[in-house]
Amino acid sequence: MARTHRIKGQRRVVIDRVHPEVDGGRFPAKRVVGDTFTVDADIVADGHDAIAAVLRYRQRGKAAWREAAMTFAGNDRWSADITLERVGFVEYTVVAWIDHYVSWRDGTKKKHDAAVVEPADLQIGAALVAGAGNRAPARSRNKRRLTEVADRLADETTPIHQRVALALTEKTAQLMAAYPDRTNASTYRHTLCVRVDRERASFSAWYELFPRSCGRGTTHGTFADVQRHLPHIAEMGFDVVYLPPIHPIGVTKRKGRNNSLTPEAHDPGSPWAIGGAAGGHTAIHPELGTYADFVHLVQAAKSYQMEIALDIAFQCSPDHPWVTEHPEWFIHRPDGSVQYAENPPKKYEDIYPLDFETHAWESLWNTLLDVFLHWIEAGVAIFRVDNPHTKSFPFWEWLIDTVHQDHPDVIFLAEAFTRPKRMYRLAKAGFTHSYTYFTWRNSPGDLREYVTELTRGEAREFFRPNFWPNTPDILHEDLQRRGPDGHGVPAAFKVRSALAATLSSNYGLYGPAFELLEHEPVRSGSEEYANSEKYEIRDWDISANHSIAPFIQRINEIRRGNVALQQTRAITFHSCDNPHILCFSKTVGGNTILVCANMDYSSTQSGWVEFSPAAIARGGRPPFVVTDLLTDIAYTWRDYWNYVELDPERTPLHIFRLEP
Amino acid sequence: MARTHRIKGQRRVVIDRVHPEVDGGRFPAKRVVGDTFTVDADIVADGHDAIAAVLRYRQRGKAAWREAAMTFAGNDRWSADITLERVGFVEYTVVAWIDHYVSWRDGTKKKHDAAVVEPADLQIGAALVAGAGNRAPARSRNKRRLTEVADRLADETTPIHQRVALALTEKTAQLMAAYPDRTNASTYRHTLCVRVDRERASFSAWYELFPRSCGRGTTHGTFADVQRHLPHIAEMGFDVVYLPPIHPIGVTKRKGRNNSLTPEAHDPGSPWAIGGAAGGHTAIHPELGTYADFVHLVQAAKSYQMEIALDIAFQCSPDHPWVTEHPEWFIHRPDGSVQYAENPPKKYEDIYPLDFETHAWESLWNTLLDVFLHWIEAGVAIFRVDNPHTKSFPFWEWLIDTVHQDHPDVIFLAEAFTRPKRMYRLAKAGFTHSYTYFTWRNSPGDLREYVTELTRGEAREFFRPNFWPNTPDILHEDLQRRGPDGHGVPAAFKVRSALAATLSSNYGLYGPAFELLEHEPVRSGSEEYANSEKYEIRDWDISANHSIAPFIQRINEIRRGNVALQQTRAITFHSCDNPHILCFSKTVGGNTILVCANMDYSSTQSGWVEFSPAAIARGGRPPFVVTDLLTDIAYTWRDYWNYVELDPERTPLHIFRLEP
Repeated sequence: MARTHRIKGQRRVVIDRVHPEVDGGRFPAKRVVGDTFTVDADIVADGHDAIAAVLRYRQRGKAAWREAAMTFAGNDRWSADITLERVGFVEYTVVAWIDHYVSWRDGTKKKHDAAVVEPADLQIGAALVAGAGNRAPARSRNKRRLTEVADRLADETTPIHQRVALALTEKTAQLMAAYPDRTNASTYRHTLCVRVDRERASFSAWYELFPRSCGRGTTHGTFADVQRHLPHIAEMGFDVVYLPPIHPIGVTKRKGRNNSLTPEAHDPGSPWAIGGAAGGHTAIHPELGTYADFVHLVQAAKSYQMEIALDIAFQCSPDHPWVTEHPEWFIHRPDGSVQYAENPPKKYEDIYPLDFETHAWESLWNTLLDVFLHWIEAGVAIFRVDNPHTKSFPFWEWLIDTVHQDHPDVIFLAEAFTRPKRMYRLAKAGFTHSYTYFTWRNSPGDLREYVTELTRGEAREFFRPNFWPNTPDILHEDLQRRGPDGHGVPAAFKVRSALAATLSSNYGLYGPAFELLEHEPVRSGSEEYANSEKYEIRDWDISANHSIAPFIQRINEIRRGNVALQQTRAITFHSCDNPHILCFSKTVGGNTILVCANMDYSSTQSGWVEFSPAAIARGGRPPFVVTDLLTDIAYTWRDYWNYVELDPERTPLHIFRLEP
Repeated sequence: MARTHRIKGQRRVVIDRVHPEVDGGRFPAKRVVGDTFTVDADIVADGHDAIAAVLRYRQRGKAAWREAAMTFAGNDRWSADITLERVGFVEYTVVAWIDHYVSWRDGTKKKHDAAVVEPADLQIGAALVAGAGNRAPARSRNKRRLTEVADRLADETTPIHQRVALALTEKTAQLMAAYPDRTNASTYRHTLCVRVDRERASFSAWYELFPRSCGRGTTHGTFADVQRHLPHIAEMGFDVVYLPPIHPIGVTKRKGRNNSLTPEAHDPGSPWAIGGAAGGHTAIHPELGTYADFVHLVQAAKSYQMEIALDIAFQCSPDHPWVTEHPEWFIHRPDGSVQYAENPPKKYEDIYPLDFETHAWESLWNTLLDVFLHWIEAGVAIFRVDNPHTKSFPFWEWLIDTVHQDHPDVIFLAEAFTRPKRMYRLAKAGFTHSYTYFTWRNSPGDLREYVTELTRGEAREFFRPNFWPNTPDILHEDLQRRGPDGHGVPAAFKVRSALAATLSSNYGLYGPAFELLEHEPVRSGSEEYANSEKYEIRDWDISANHSIAPFIQRINEIRRGNVALQQTRAITFHSCDNPHILCFSKTVGGNTILVCANMDYSSTQSGWVEFSPAAIARGGRPPFVVTDLLTDIAYTWRDYWNYVELDPERTPLHIFRLEP
């Protein structure tokens, strides 16, 4: 029988269930700079001795650990808070030990209350204090003080009650806490990690637009044209201007207008059919401008406190230089041709996927990494990644981590409209943000269930939703209805964008098509836009009367003015007796916002909304004074249940601020 | 920037959230021999390729892995079942890979349905089949068949539809599945473990008795006297006869009757004050008999299909040999005396605790291990461990694992009436069974909540409850009420024991005191028995008229005759409109048992019980025929809601069997 021990048997404290811990520590949790980061753990030992515990943490790569004392939170749970100060990774673990001094002090106090302290008890305490004195720095003032306390506790000529009083002083407790005996301390078995992103990772408003539609009329737009649009986008209140791929577009098998297989000569092709004679993923489509023009645009955006985000789509048109320079990165058919994308029986012959099982995966990975580094060099720090779920998960984990080592500020948005487990895995692999099912959650019940999963389930630690009511690929049926003036129904666009912007602190819109209420699908039953910008240049009249840009501007102003809306995780849904009305609130500090939205865009709906102390984070009692930030009208609510009436044409939703 | 990869980049499948997995694989899950063990996992890859996965498993210590195919269970979850065949540990993990053949076959089928299969598609398939042929054993029949299939698929002279038909045969699929290409297979990052116990670990009825009370009158009983009691215990239907410590009892500071500090000369002392002139934890109290007598008793119990369980209490009386032989295992006070047990301001001077922080912990641990091995040598394979939560958790983990290496059959019951996290940690550390809070869950609501936590929470994987309505330390207030004939109230004893025996498949009673309705506390408000056997010899009249032994016998018969009651995890609680009535059912295979118990032991209670298809595992529709196994009366229930009336004096509970 094996009797040798590979453990240190004197360690009596055990540490379990440290939180946050994603998949047993396999993946980091996510937070942003400035967040208070709470770590808790089950910590127990045998017997009745007192326990002490610290959270140990350090910036990844630093040698020195810092420590924060953990406090007892009930039911054998211990907790510590730290503030996350820098972008990057913070490693953390938990260390705990038996605190013999506290055990002794508590016992001595009880014995003293029962008047049964014996001289030997004080000798035991004196030895513990002398031990701390030995641990204090040589010749330090504290060492001297501890030695004095030990001597006085041991001094049999002093009355017991005086020595007990000395043992129980707060000063003695503080001195002892400074030099604990950690000889038999236990350390949690994992070093865990939290990824700390910059603030824009948790609060951002994105605006997607096609640079080529920014020209005059249907002339191919340039980066200079985009630059002319920046004031309009900035005025609406967006932070991120996201551009579809800006690279040369393939000619071979090019798609025409409305995804036709028979393009006209002047059709510009899809920006996602990347690569041509002018280059691939590090090149710029010649009609857009030069690298210098692009860098200039990036800088111009910064002057409006906005950032340019690029779309990185790792797929190649048949004309991409890699096809000939690196045939080993593609699968070949028996006739030697490159395997095009397929979804049998459909073929996509304008697209060649990369082969992530290639024996040359190292050169492929490094080249893909170089694509990101190239655009980071140009000043880009936000990437929207196209279909990441069709590239290998281990690749993304390596790529994002490698980029973050030198560029911790970079934000990655995963455009993975796929099954939940795959979306979550991409988020665990490192994507900062993720597109979501928001676009297809179109009733109060569905939204409540989905947002609860995202904010209450285990995903809350690693999955940051970014809510989009539309994208160039998705014009949801709810936005397809035709209003009386031939455009989309404003209430639908207003409610969907306001919900995206208030349910999630990260949200985005696909550009002029949204604010101009573009509502026509390519055909009935389709979610594709008619005359989609994916295949043609559009001429938008952004100053049209029916634009809801002023509404969007107001929503973004409300977000900026209310910290409650600058985070996603803390949300409470409120009961309403009308199933068409969605009600929820968010509270941060003294700021509470309550949203009531009518999701029936054709009829007035009314109902009673619960606003009980239990349901709002700030407590309080009626009367409540609330101000609708869309109309600046204040209301006084005299009860916990309050009546709302939402008319799609005039007031499709309220965004109330609870007044102090 | 670091660009070297420590990973194999071609692996595209990722495996997450394998279940069961206790604390990220730190601790084993628990099952018993014969159980079907289900393992499931999230398995995803990029793109649209088919995935294949296997559960790999092996007996711990064996070199060779076995495999069971995992099947797709929806929502990216995969699952496999294996039967646990042997006591010990089974290691397991998950391996998964892209199945390019299945991807190709599915695509080819779709293309075939759309009549767009190209010759090149069949060449691709032929290459995949030829690859499997290369992997098949040299000169095997399968190798020959695969080569033939590959040749025929590639044969351009055969019409495409014939070759597609060949590709899609079940036979081809089976051949291909036998030789998968696992070049880029991924293995889950942990090897997990399940502890497989013998069947008694999941189904046992324990009976605790004090051997010294088994003599005639108040003469000190012997092992031979215990042996005379075995037929009575066996007739009642118990499996395990558990004896409090059988070691020499200390004389110094011995406690007298009713825990008095002033014992009479003839007071026998507490069996838990272990150690005296005659020896310590490996010795036998001389008045009980010899080692040979004990071995004889163990063998005699086996002849009744029962086992003797010993109580191991690691603490010492001042007279224990270790106190002088191993002073290094104890803490010493400044005056050189050994530190007695304390709960300030209370002293327990008859007990010296062991010091688990001793520098000599290795010799201490090994000696404590030897105690178990000594009694295992004597034929004992079940231990009830006294207060394990006052000995170090790492010690128990080491000890139980070390014992199990050579004696995998041994069962450990943790007597830790302590906080939930400490109870759970002991179970994770290896204890087979655990005492619980059942004794203090005395209303239907409390029991429902507690049993739901144990059977639905994460503890279900590692914590096996053992329910006891009483112990020598705990006479709950509910059992203290005085019946009209001067004994306890039979309904309370019947309901509490029947609930313990049916809610939990492991349960136990503290002996004659229970069956004879012993109800007097040492003083009002105490849970200690008056004239407790812990401090004196009792003379029990087990043939007394008021004994509920026949009821207990019937309960144990019902347990043995109904597999539904031989497990704890699968339980459903049923609604009842009377809060005094607890209703639940258990179903295993075709056996369904429904228990309705009146937990008001003084008044008749009646109510309507829900027995809907949703609430019973077997489905079905009214009329239901149920037989009360306590009275053998059958009832026909014509609806999902049924009326029950429970009279404490005649029918305090029903135990219904649902008839086919």
